Amino acid sequence: MLEPSLMKIALDAMGGDFAPEAPIMGAIHALRVFSDIQLILVGTEPTIKEIFYKKGGNAVEQRVEFLHASQVISMEDPAIESVRHKRDSSISKCVELVKNGKADAVVSAGNTGAVVAAATIFLRTLPGISRAGIASVIPTEKNPFILIDSGAIIDATPENLLDFGIMGSIYSKKILGVAHPRVGLLSIGTENIKGNELTRGAFKLLSKTHLNFVGNIEGRDLFENPVDVVVCDGFVGNVVLKTSESVATAIVRWLKREFSKNPVRILGALLAKGAFESVRKKTNYEEYGGALLLGIRGTCIIAHGSSTPKAICNAIRVAREALIQNVNHVIIEEIKTHHELIECQKSSSLPVA
Amino acid sequence: MLEPSLMKIALDAMGGDFAPEAPIMGAIHALRVFSDIQLILVGTEPTIKEIFYKKGGNAVEQRVEFLHASQVISMEDPAIESVRHKRDSSISKCVELVKNGKADAVVSAGNTGAVVAAATIFLRTLPGISRAGIASVIPTEKNPFILIDSGAIIDATPENLLDFGIMGSIYSKKILGVAHPRVGLLSIGTENIKGNELTRGAFKLLSKTHLNFVGNIEGRDLFENPVDVVVCDGFVGNVVLKTSESVATAIVRWLKREFSKNPVRILGALLAKGAFESVRKKTNYEEYGGALLLGIRGTCIIAHGSSTPKAICNAIRVAREALIQNVNHVIIEEIKTHHELIECQKSSSLPVA
Repeated sequence: MLEPSLMKIALDAMGGDFAPEAPIMGAIHALRVFSDIQLILVGTEPTIKEIFYKKGGNAVEQRVEFLHASQVISMEDPAIESVRHKRDSSISKCVELVKNGKADAVVSAGNTGAVVAAATIFLRTLPGISRAGIASVIPTEKNPFILIDSGAIIDATPENLLDFGIMGSIYSKKILGVAHPRVGLLSIGTENIKGNELTRGAFKLLSKTHLNFVGNIEGRDLFENPVDVVVCDGFVGNVVLKTSESVATAIVRWLKREFSKNPVRILGALLAKGAFESVRKKTNYEEYGGALLLGIRGTCIIAHGSSTPKAICNAIRVAREALIQNVNHVIIEEIKTHHELIECQKSSSLPVA
Repeated sequence: MLEPSLMKIALDAMGGDFAPEAPIMGAIHALRVFSDIQLILVGTEPTIKEIFYKKGGNAVEQRVEFLHASQVISMEDPAIESVRHKRDSSISKCVELVKNGKADAVVSAGNTGAVVAAATIFLRTLPGISRAGIASVIPTEKNPFILIDSGAIIDATPENLLDFGIMGSIYSKKILGVAHPRVGLLSIGTENIKGNELTRGAFKLLSKTHLNFVGNIEGRDLFENPVDVVVCDGFVGNVVLKTSESVATAIVRWLKREFSKNPVRILGALLAKGAFESVRKKTNYEEYGGALLLGIRGTCIIAHGSSTPKAICNAIRVAREALIQNVNHVIIEEIKTHHELIECQKSSSLPVA
């Protein structure tokens, strides 16, 4: 029986490339670090129990429950169909725990599309929000920025992008501690008129908010002159996220290969090893702990598909912080305030009778 | 009077951040390297003539003509409007030289949107092609790949993406010498059904071609497991192009800063300097000479906005190669063949009477 005063987080023990070992090891570590959380491990019960105790779970077992799920949604399964048909999957059961008030948050490193679908279908969106967006934390040399949406909505509307701007700004304030987050709209030119139909529409809507909206930004600004929140649709966001990872990995690997080309360079590389290590550490996705699915009635963290125990532990940390900061409550309030502002602007521009 | 047997290339002497010096110095260098070309330098005649002779143009003046243009389209000017209203701009005059058969190709490092607009309005598209696309050459550790479209069309159709696949494949074969270019469609998942409405439509069309179409690719594949031709719409392509440049620059700069943090690392960096230099050389846009605008009745090279003399010289080299390889003729033939193939497929699937 779990302690009612502690935060309860449901963890998909079957999600990710290294499941169930990595999620379970990450869970044990998180329970050691955070004394104010409890975890419900969801998956094939005999298997996950065995691993849990083998990996030294005894010490934290008072704050753990197990929930059996007879099905697993694979990384290749189609998102919506698998959520509809595999009702006994670990992802669906995790989300249902939140729906039924038995958990406060869910963490999964499983099929992203399925997690988004399950959260949207079972939990529904927050009042005033029509679609949820994935907010990923992207590292830069100075401060990380939020990329929203990095893959939840493929065909977004300007209104969705407006919501993303508002929600991303709250994330930046509440979780990353940025006082006045600068919000940029990802486009292909900095002038207002640049972009496609979607971004031109979103530009107009974002301009009318209370946000610290800096206007359009380009791909070149992302890492050269970063803002705090980058708003885009899920197709573009997903491409940007994966392209950035790919370029960074390729450049470092390439440099390392060049470094090994002759004895002098090898010596140089040895002496300068700490430099690579330092960049690797700051760009390591494991540190950022997964993306928050913003806009749903519940707290849902989507961890990286190849999450290690450390990454899972950090994803649990993000869930915990989102609960402590009451991010959803702030979103509901801000969205309400925004709509009141728009109504007020409208009525003040009405012709005098 | 220019020699009729030589290729004639119109160069926008006013285009780019370092104009007119950089274009003129690049022109002089190209004339020295390529004995089979002639150049028409278009811009403020007294100024460009003066710079030309000051920079040592005497030696190659037999293969140069000057054409006065009283107007300049700036980088900030709106594309279509400025082409329509500044009929005496260097960009418009360059393109008109091609239209009137007085030049075979045009090279400009000026306002990309204006160059695309001028080429499309004055030259029109090739038979069977409805919209032109910008084909950029992107370096990787192994071979460079073609990214098409990197910014010509903002709201593309599946048919446009089909044309880009066919044209990109020809570019890869004819200019980069790849025997069977692998063509990938940039999307957000490798399965056929993944992507947005545009890419799902394009996937179907590309599957029916004779191309070596490998299906959907993701941002993560771009530099990890590169194909030869990456097809996408101009919005996504432009974001990818600029994001990649930005990440690469940021990572290298960050590493360099880490290298300078203590004396041991500084020594290491000195010993391994060649490694950085080697990567810098291979990723340097100056080497790639600008992007080819494919699909118009004429040969048009869009050079990088911050083109140096070397970049301009290489852009002229690309124009020369496109002319020698008769890229447009091959495109017309391939598009015809493709439509015949589709007709043939249709008639063979008709019910037997």
